Amino acid sequence: MNTPARPIDFYFDFSSPYSYVASEWIEALAARHGRTVQWKAILLGATFAAAELKPPVAHPIKREYSLRDFERTARFAGVPLTVPTPFPIPTQNAARLFWWLQTKGNATASHWARHCLRAYFARGVNLSDDTALQGLAVEFGLDALAALAVWGDAEWKLKLKTENDAAIAAGVFGAPFFMIDGEPFWGNDRRAQIERWLEKGPF
Amino acid sequence: MNTPARPIDFYFDFSSPYSYVASEWIEALAARHGRTVQWKAILLGATFAAAELKPPVAHPIKREYSLRDFERTARFAGVPLTVPTPFPIPTQNAARLFWWLQTKGNATASHWARHCLRAYFARGVNLSDDTALQGLAVEFGLDALAALAVWGDAEWKLKLKTENDAAIAAGVFGAPFFMIDGEPFWGNDRRAQIERWLEKGPF
Repeated sequence: MNTPARPIDFYFDFSSPYSYVASEWIEALAARHGRTVQWKAILLGATFAAAELKPPVAHPIKREYSLRDFERTARFAGVPLTVPTPFPIPTQNAARLFWWLQTKGNATASHWARHCLRAYFARGVNLSDDTALQGLAVEFGLDALAALAVWGDAEWKLKLKTENDAAIAAGVFGAPFFMIDGEPFWGNDRRAQIERWLEKGPF
Repeated sequence: MNTPARPIDFYFDFSSPYSYVASEWIEALAARHGRTVQWKAILLGATFAAAELKPPVAHPIKREYSLRDFERTARFAGVPLTVPTPFPIPTQNAARLFWWLQTKGNATASHWARHCLRAYFARGVNLSDDTALQGLAVEFGLDALAALAVWGDAEWKLKLKTENDAAIAAGVFGAPFFMIDGEPFWGNDRRAQIERWLEKGPF
């Protein structure tokens, strides 16, 4: 049997629709099986480069399917999602703030993650725009200038880079990506396999 | 509501593990909802080229995950699968024979498809080897030389190319790929959405 106490590592990117959908069910699923979730913001740009991949919407034919599937998959999961404009976007500033908030606790950082993912995918707030992101920080109870200072700070730039490198070393090449008891699961659509693993252990 | 009588178009490649897994459940799922399945053999090499994609195992990092996930996903679905050697393989000869058998009926062709998919993924029979494929043809009740003549025939080469082109024009970029009432579903992992669609119509 697996060790029930080990947290689930949940890698996500703020610009990933399937990460957003998964972010809406992972906590409840983990809790039902006595697990906690260790949220890890990454940049898909970095993992894509390491795995020689491109975003699905960068491919002809696959692009049209993906745009349709993002919204259909969200409806299927009962999550409100409209593909935003612009999409995809660079998300390093939201991610650096995430890692800074991790020093205040995983719950604080994961609340920030859900706040931003919902803002981008349900309300169309552009996380790559400094002013819009500062607005989200203020909604979250942070000071706008303090937020700006964090994502401009070399310390949090380095922290995000270190976390990206660690994710790639752990085998992460896309998002959402789950690591459970050392077993890798890629994609929102691995939810049923994850549930089975948490219920009965390795299969 | 959708039109219950319309068949499900099921696009597959003989070298695709997820196509194999899906081939083991699609007929029963369709039958439960009063549908038939129109099997369509394609070459992923052609759809990948059109969509500027490569096989998952051609990407660093993703390769290791995929080899693990093929077998885990098959176990999860209760389907015997061992990643064969060599993998992937060119499958045009099995596919040309499939399209020739379609002239004798969809059921005959789909039986050939399942015969070959099981042989490759459960028994390791190399479908790209002429002698091995002739052996499968004989097991299937065909004459070995007649089978060889079919896959060397310009008519069936052209038929396969025409079907590949039609699949790409229909939006197919990977396999398995399902088209149901004009709605596209890509991947073995869209099974739950397909079931929902067949039960209750568009969502």
